[in-house]
Amino acid sequence: MNISVPDAINLLTRTPKVLEDLLLGIPDELLYANEGNDSWSPYDVVGHLIHGEKTDWIPRMKICLSNDDNKTFTPFDRFAQFEDSKGKSLPELLEEFRRLREENIITLQNFQLTAEDFKRTAIHPAFGTVTLQQLLATWVVHDQNHIYQITRTISHQYREETGPWRAYLRIIE
Amino acid sequence: MNISVPDAINLLTRTPKVLEDLLLGIPDELLYANEGNDSWSPYDVVGHLIHGEKTDWIPRMKICLSNDDNKTFTPFDRFAQFEDSKGKSLPELLEEFRRLREENIITLQNFQLTAEDFKRTAIHPAFGTVTLQQLLATWVVHDQNHIYQITRTISHQYREETGPWRAYLRIIE
Repeated sequence: MNISVPDAINLLTRTPKVLEDLLLGIPDELLYANEGNDSWSPYDVVGHLIHGEKTDWIPRMKICLSNDDNKTFTPFDRFAQFEDSKGKSLPELLEEFRRLREENIITLQNFQLTAEDFKRTAIHPAFGTVTLQQLLATWVVHDQNHIYQITRTISHQYREETGPWRAYLRIIE
Repeated sequence: MNISVPDAINLLTRTPKVLEDLLLGIPDELLYANEGNDSWSPYDVVGHLIHGEKTDWIPRMKICLSNDDNKTFTPFDRFAQFEDSKGKSLPELLEEFRRLREENIITLQNFQLTAEDFKRTAIHPAFGTVTLQQLLATWVVHDQNHIYQITRTISHQYREETGPWRAYLRIIE
């Protein structure tokens, strides 16, 4: 299925609300628990999504759309949230994400992207040439991926509790 | 982490809202698309969750709590939604799920389950002896599993569109 701007906006608009419904008011034992080692807690994931709104999606689209000589993306910092989220409560983070996402959707609408724009390219530090179309689809799937990560991390805490049913639950397989 | 009734209710209460936020108003191309073969669409998943509210979680808890001689669960029909959902719109299904979940949470509260009740058992047709505690944890994780399935199925439709980023997106790996 081809990504379109209206469908992307339809999906991207939902995420702040989905995160609020999944996370606001869950026990701290679930909010701050991860899947072991250096995996992320649901709290960490929200910070990561905020960092993406600030430094990834829209800034990278602007690079795709620019006529600069240097069209290489700044590498994304996958660990920024550990510093940036410090001292912030979950409601504060969710509110920040909601506001940034709202602003970014307005910016995306204002780009008035054409079929030609979708083909515009930039250089990804690991992958080389990528298109704006791929970037837009990735923004959408990236949200779904982290909603999945949150549901997976919550489920992880109860994996032993489910006993033999675990065999039927792909999320904790 | 041990499952408790308050934590289970905290999580189970969220799911109708999460489904609404994820699905109400998405393009039909996403709502009815699956992952190929006999996999389920997001629309199918909502019907499956409704059938679980009617025939699985609470009825099976009642069997665990009963003193009947025959404590074997009725096998769960994984395909019931294809008949039951026929002719129903997504808003109708979401409303039905919301109402059934609300009623079932009240029933769960009214059980006033004790630590002793958590150890009560019944016979699962495939697994043999299971406990009420395992059943309660499974109800919670089952919700997360199907939220995951919905995000995965939506993502699946865009997997080609993400280009090389697919390597970073576990949900479409």
